[in-house]
Amino acid sequence: MQTLVFEDWYKNHQERILSDFFTFLRFPSISTNKKHEQDIRKTASWLSEYMKGIGLEVDVWETSHFPVVFGSYLKAGPNRPTLLIYHHYDVQPTDPLDLWENDPFEPVIKENCVYARGASDNKGQCFYSLTALKAYLELSDRIELNIKIVIEGEEESSSKGIKGILKTKAQELKADYLIVVDAGISHIESPAITLGIRGILSLEIECKNSFVDLHSGVHGGIALNPNRALAAIIANMWESSGRVAIPHFYDDVEPVKKWKDSLDMTFDQDLYTKEFGVHAFSHEEGYSLRESNWLRPSLEVNGMWGGYIEPGFKTVIPSKAHAKISCRLVPNQNPQKIAQNIVEYFKKNAPPGIEISAEIGEGYKAFCCFPDSVIAKTAVLAYEEIFKKPCKYTACGATVPIVTELAAVSAAETILMGVGLPTNNIHAPNEHFSMDCFKLGFLVMTNLLTRLSQRVEQREEDLCGNSAEQERRIEKP
Amino acid sequence: MQTLVFEDWYKNHQERILSDFFTFLRFPSISTNKKHEQDIRKTASWLSEYMKGIGLEVDVWETSHFPVVFGSYLKAGPNRPTLLIYHHYDVQPTDPLDLWENDPFEPVIKENCVYARGASDNKGQCFYSLTALKAYLELSDRIELNIKIVIEGEEESSSKGIKGILKTKAQELKADYLIVVDAGISHIESPAITLGIRGILSLEIECKNSFVDLHSGVHGGIALNPNRALAAIIANMWESSGRVAIPHFYDDVEPVKKWKDSLDMTFDQDLYTKEFGVHAFSHEEGYSLRESNWLRPSLEVNGMWGGYIEPGFKTVIPSKAHAKISCRLVPNQNPQKIAQNIVEYFKKNAPPGIEISAEIGEGYKAFCCFPDSVIAKTAVLAYEEIFKKPCKYTACGATVPIVTELAAVSAAETILMGVGLPTNNIHAPNEHFSMDCFKLGFLVMTNLLTRLSQRVEQREEDLCGNSAEQERRIEKP
Repeated sequence: MQTLVFEDWYKNHQERILSDFFTFLRFPSISTNKKHEQDIRKTASWLSEYMKGIGLEVDVWETSHFPVVFGSYLKAGPNRPTLLIYHHYDVQPTDPLDLWENDPFEPVIKENCVYARGASDNKGQCFYSLTALKAYLELSDRIELNIKIVIEGEEESSSKGIKGILKTKAQELKADYLIVVDAGISHIESPAITLGIRGILSLEIECKNSFVDLHSGVHGGIALNPNRALAAIIANMWESSGRVAIPHFYDDVEPVKKWKDSLDMTFDQDLYTKEFGVHAFSHEEGYSLRESNWLRPSLEVNGMWGGYIEPGFKTVIPSKAHAKISCRLVPNQNPQKIAQNIVEYFKKNAPPGIEISAEIGEGYKAFCCFPDSVIAKTAVLAYEEIFKKPCKYTACGATVPIVTELAAVSAAETILMGVGLPTNNIHAPNEHFSMDCFKLGFLVMTNLLTRLSQRVEQREEDLCGNSAEQERRIEKP
Repeated sequence: MQTLVFEDWYKNHQERILSDFFTFLRFPSISTNKKHEQDIRKTASWLSEYMKGIGLEVDVWETSHFPVVFGSYLKAGPNRPTLLIYHHYDVQPTDPLDLWENDPFEPVIKENCVYARGASDNKGQCFYSLTALKAYLELSDRIELNIKIVIEGEEESSSKGIKGILKTKAQELKADYLIVVDAGISHIESPAITLGIRGILSLEIECKNSFVDLHSGVHGGIALNPNRALAAIIANMWESSGRVAIPHFYDDVEPVKKWKDSLDMTFDQDLYTKEFGVHAFSHEEGYSLRESNWLRPSLEVNGMWGGYIEPGFKTVIPSKAHAKISCRLVPNQNPQKIAQNIVEYFKKNAPPGIEISAEIGEGYKAFCCFPDSVIAKTAVLAYEEIFKKPCKYTACGATVPIVTELAAVSAAETILMGVGLPTNNIHAPNEHFSMDCFKLGFLVMTNLLTRLSQRVEQREEDLCGNSAEQERRIEKP
């Protein structure tokens, strides 16, 4: 089918698309905070109804945490290939709320951009996918592709729920191709598919001294301040070269030369500074900033707090100080092992008498794949037809936690893709998504669906390798 | 008058005392946070009415910030001495609120202790003073002492208001003796008067990098995390010896041997650990813990925060990280100079590209006095008669900001006193004050009032020095 047909359809349905998209955005489906559990469930329920409406069979899979919404169109039959699409319907928290220019759950449009939490990550990308499915199912006479779509509700926290049911849902998730539509492109004129993402581990550390907060005059000079202890331990987590100083942190990191050579490693530092206001850089000696971000593990203190942090002043020596720490990992690094090493590091380096406790979150391994698979090559063609520019290969320093395990369970050729932009303020105040990007995403998706449906060849075993090979690559790219 | 008479009076008025005390405690007069301005004003207004009710002339002095309540009884006439009593009616904030066992502004009694914010610091001490004045004025036939009482509303924040009006109110504040009833004793069986307190400076530091919070996957390895920058700068504020590493921090510190020799320097570290749960100590090499707390300046990070600090996880590289820092100073140290040095230190030690901004609060010098004044000697006698134990001389690591300037303006012999206990959890959750201490405070105050009123001698110029001498001592003990 011609792109023109989908463009026409989009034009005719524009108003309704936007109104449904806004409904989706209005659910405050923040997964990192238990208090939004009901909002999460309402989102899943709305999504499930919406997906039924576009002609999919829908199941809501209960998990130990939040539900996974699973839709399928399997009428192409067992002799035709199956595409599995991944999204998530949960969003990041909204703080600092005072920096938002609108209520993050009451979307507004400014200069053809939708401003709302999740506008880009991942409700925006999810909704152009669903819109593409809707158009495709509505417009196509002969659909020779089986389609599955899995939308989880806690990508932003731990993916614990979906992780727990992957094995029992292995049959439902089997596919030939898996596209994880939670990635992006560096610029609206630079189409790209994403061949790798980093893994993640997260943990929370508590440094404790006194029973309760102490008066800093009455106790200053006597009781050691946990803020001071925590700052000292954190400060020493990096060597002066920028390398992480946690013992064994780099032990399992493997060279990725071959894989790296397929990536477009361009990084415009001046443009970056202009876009994000960043003037201080986190150099690791011997690596470019792009390498540090895509190909090297990093360690960040995502949150740090202790004592009085409200307006005004309260002269306390706090009882406790805390840090939320996460690492982004590269292939072959083991999240649990590294998290344990960090906890050990804190315990070993805490001043005598300071009590360290830690809570380790879920960890996920990094993922990478090669550009020689059917799905990669087909996606490249789709991007190039819609963007009318050469499609590049890129990687991403971020994580889609479940990708590695989902790729293994589905036994599908996998790529990450999307049209999110680095300037979308995802995870930050005033997240937004251009409706131009939304439309491009819609067109890429319909193009890809059409191409996969029209494919007459069998899966190219020789060229792309079998699923066992794929699994091996996930471990050792 | 005999102590017995006051004990009887106290017994007969007990119920009413408690009910008025509770009313006083119910005002959430938190001065560090602007939003309590109306509560502060209501407290001042209630206090003013209460003081009129006990027979004082009352003025509410407006200031650039919060009002000062001033009461006086001047009928003894110009030939009799004048006692000035200092208190404050504002309280500390209540966070962390979840650690309180009751609403901090709804007092409850458990085992004869009143639990509420301000129960000890300083509403409890203020209210036994007022109760003592009430009893004294009611029971005495012949009052040969002029009495002034000044109660400010922002001791816990900056004392900015009272500081600004001291000069214009110099005449009203003139006195022979000044007692600052905001200090304590180490144990309910160890009476003591306080000969010195430390000064204070406070400042807030902001470390900034990006425009907004950044996704720690997308930007990790590129943008330097302000939490990391802040932790490193904080960590280096102390040498490994425990000395503060800020340049010129100790430049003006003078030896205080003579003064120190009059103090009871006892410190029971095991008891301290038992009472406060402190196992990690902030040693400065070459000084005992008691010396470090009373006679050496200290630097504390009272609050430190950056990034996501709510429940759950949000993987951000924050745009900014913050610290609230305060120092306790010893005599001859200049708060503004040291605050500037700290800001310089941050600017000099920030990684390139990290933007440092700072806000410096009000600063106050340390205060110390000697035990050979009339007021010190009379207070010692009062304590010894009520406690039936020898009265010691003590110091306090904390600050009553306005003392140094109030002592100078009033030109009065000054001491600090009180019956607060180290275990009262002042500035912390579950602040409390034993009604046994309250009664002891009441009796010490009535005893002191009686003694001063009965004094026939003139002020002992030769022994205690004149006010110019007093001022000199404040600067150079």
